[in-house]
Amino acid sequence: MDFLSILRKKRDGLPLTKEELCFFANGAADGSIPLYQLSAMLMAMYLNGLDARETADLTLAMAHSGDMADLSGIDGVKGDKHSTGGVGDKTTLIVAPVAAACGVKMAKMSGRGLGHTGGTIDKLESIPGFQTSLSREKFISVVNETGLCVVGASGDLCPADKELYALRDVTETVSSIPLIASSIMSKKLAGGADCIVLDVKCGSGAFMKTEAEARKLAAAMVEIGKRAGRRVAAVLTNMDLPLGCAVGNAVEVQEAVAVLNGKGPDDLRTVALTLASTLLVLCGKGTKEACEAMAREALDSGKAKQAFERMVEAQGGDADYIRDQERLPKAKVSYTLQAPQTGYITVMDAEAIGRVCVLLGAGRHTKEDAIDPAAGILLLKKTGDFVKSGEPLATLLCEDEALLKEAERAFLAALRFSDTPPELIPLILGTVE
Amino acid sequence: MDFLSILRKKRDGLPLTKEELCFFANGAADGSIPLYQLSAMLMAMYLNGLDARETADLTLAMAHSGDMADLSGIDGVKGDKHSTGGVGDKTTLIVAPVAAACGVKMAKMSGRGLGHTGGTIDKLESIPGFQTSLSREKFISVVNETGLCVVGASGDLCPADKELYALRDVTETVSSIPLIASSIMSKKLAGGADCIVLDVKCGSGAFMKTEAEARKLAAAMVEIGKRAGRRVAAVLTNMDLPLGCAVGNAVEVQEAVAVLNGKGPDDLRTVALTLASTLLVLCGKGTKEACEAMAREALDSGKAKQAFERMVEAQGGDADYIRDQERLPKAKVSYTLQAPQTGYITVMDAEAIGRVCVLLGAGRHTKEDAIDPAAGILLLKKTGDFVKSGEPLATLLCEDEALLKEAERAFLAALRFSDTPPELIPLILGTVE
Repeated sequence: MDFLSILRKKRDGLPLTKEELCFFANGAADGSIPLYQLSAMLMAMYLNGLDARETADLTLAMAHSGDMADLSGIDGVKGDKHSTGGVGDKTTLIVAPVAAACGVKMAKMSGRGLGHTGGTIDKLESIPGFQTSLSREKFISVVNETGLCVVGASGDLCPADKELYALRDVTETVSSIPLIASSIMSKKLAGGADCIVLDVKCGSGAFMKTEAEARKLAAAMVEIGKRAGRRVAAVLTNMDLPLGCAVGNAVEVQEAVAVLNGKGPDDLRTVALTLASTLLVLCGKGTKEACEAMAREALDSGKAKQAFERMVEAQGGDADYIRDQERLPKAKVSYTLQAPQTGYITVMDAEAIGRVCVLLGAGRHTKEDAIDPAAGILLLKKTGDFVKSGEPLATLLCEDEALLKEAERAFLAALRFSDTPPELIPLILGTVE
Repeated sequence: MDFLSILRKKRDGLPLTKEELCFFANGAADGSIPLYQLSAMLMAMYLNGLDARETADLTLAMAHSGDMADLSGIDGVKGDKHSTGGVGDKTTLIVAPVAAACGVKMAKMSGRGLGHTGGTIDKLESIPGFQTSLSREKFISVVNETGLCVVGASGDLCPADKELYALRDVTETVSSIPLIASSIMSKKLAGGADCIVLDVKCGSGAFMKTEAEARKLAAAMVEIGKRAGRRVAAVLTNMDLPLGCAVGNAVEVQEAVAVLNGKGPDDLRTVALTLASTLLVLCGKGTKEACEAMAREALDSGKAKQAFERMVEAQGGDADYIRDQERLPKAKVSYTLQAPQTGYITVMDAEAIGRVCVLLGAGRHTKEDAIDPAAGILLLKKTGDFVKSGEPLATLLCEDEALLKEAERAFLAALRFSDTPPELIPLILGTVE
């Protein structure tokens, strides 16, 4: 097969065959197609698009460009959950135990934080001893024993996506719905689960800034799942402001555990329960209403918390840190910010808050950066709240006092105040099935 | 300046500023922009286009990316001529002496053949002793003394175009009117002439297959010239069949000299006179009618031939070879093909004939190939002619008899015959000013 003739077809707006998309994905994975031809193709795909069949074929081709996880050693229905990335987004730590408590096997690969969004692997690693890199056998046995296991992506998972993702990042071809959808879904398909719930974030802190874009991305991913023979649904959730009140790593584990204990912020509990019940429906656990009740019951009965503790122990973590959260890593510096004026908070830019968190040490500028597990932000007020000048707004946590000045300035710059309350966007914007 | 933000603009269909196009051209020339970003930009330009102002700015940026020829040492108006490339296209060898005989200073850089089209430098080098690589001083003095000089491109001419042209070739971004126009015109602008006549070939043997495409390309190039402050006009000429009857190198010199001697094929004489008179008008030599008469008179009086002989001598060639053409390189093998059937020749695919010529040794497959100056084809019949089965069609000239079999088969495959005469496309399709 000749890559230039494939490139010419896409340049001219013609659909590519499954074989042609495989040739592209494999050529990206093994380096046999030069980068300058891959990037020309990415730009042609960006501008001329891919139809639903092409998007699904590209996704499968990227999934099969490397190892496909073999979950056949796990009994029962295998579930997975993915978020397009947000700030304060610790829902995996709640959804996975809830689903496990309801009999779904959660064999999950997660990522690290990059840019302004956090990553589940970083959060779990703030629990002393917690191992996110397990052998395949250990991974399967933990899932079979505890119902859930969360590890970092390992092995040769989707090498085509790895190459193309890196190239898109430096050729302005990131923001294409079919390319984003195929990138995310290739990893989910390679991950091997039968049922996948997607949390498509929408708003200032998300990659998709508008509901219309988020809805398109959700539809594209659900369609890929269907064409690949998986059960997939997407929930659109608001990421105009951070989810919950904790942003960081250890503080997010604490907040997730609070929800598992029947406490914690309402918005986090609501999003987590919506995702969990949507996944339960996909897994054939009953009607929407039955699954909602089942998910609530798993939380309220403490069964989800027990599942989480079992997983922490099975992955080498000390569950005492979960039972007594005061033992989790603590920041040396804790500084409480005050409201600079009186009024309603009308904007709390989630992306900007995420960047403050990176500044404090909780996130990475480059893949090689180390993170400070204790660093982060505790939000005391959020969008819609009325505050008086001088009232505490948030607590900044970090290792080095010298970081505070810039962090405080950046945090305050992320806020807008007004005499009148803002119109709040709903937390759950819809579901795409 | 940040190249990704420039790439993003073009991706989104926004026009680029002069500064942004300069940044692109200079980054291509000096290698500071990676190839994968250049190719993404080329695809974005291919698909989203460039408006007339952008095309002119890109052309000037590419022209200025390297050396600009300094023709200030030449007295009088400086003319240049460019052909988009054809088969049997030896018009430069007639147009340049005619214009020189009429007082225009022709300081011309030409190229070598590549692919199925020939190149003026290769043709001139079939004259023993002819030097196509001269110092700048010598080049200027030959022009001042003889009125014309034709050399190969030298120095660091349009390095941005060199890079981008090579990259377009391997990223399916060649066939874009603004990119083709800017590539051609950047070299013409760097060449330094005041007045430029363009021969835009159109048909099966040309890069532009349709008249509409050729007209668009011509308009784009003329517009660039205007915006760059040069006088430019384009003549659209038919390249559905080879021009004249000789295709090769020495044989094309012979045919051009025949026209300079008042003989030779009518089509070649007509195209050459049209181009020459168009250039004379641009050079301010008079009205269209006056310039046509002047060009004819330069040919018929022998003045053009004398100018050509003076140039050959000044560039180290032996003009005796021109006076007595039998002394030019002669092929060892000469084989005359016969018509396989009786009928009108309705098609004589110029590109295919060009490829037969390459096969015989007259052209190159790669830039490094050596050519055989004596190899080529003499057409005895052309499109529209009625032939009887067995009648001589063409003479193939080469060094090695073993080449004949494949060449004969390929030559015959380039022809179509019919009982009824074909509708002939006019030789001159129009002028764009």
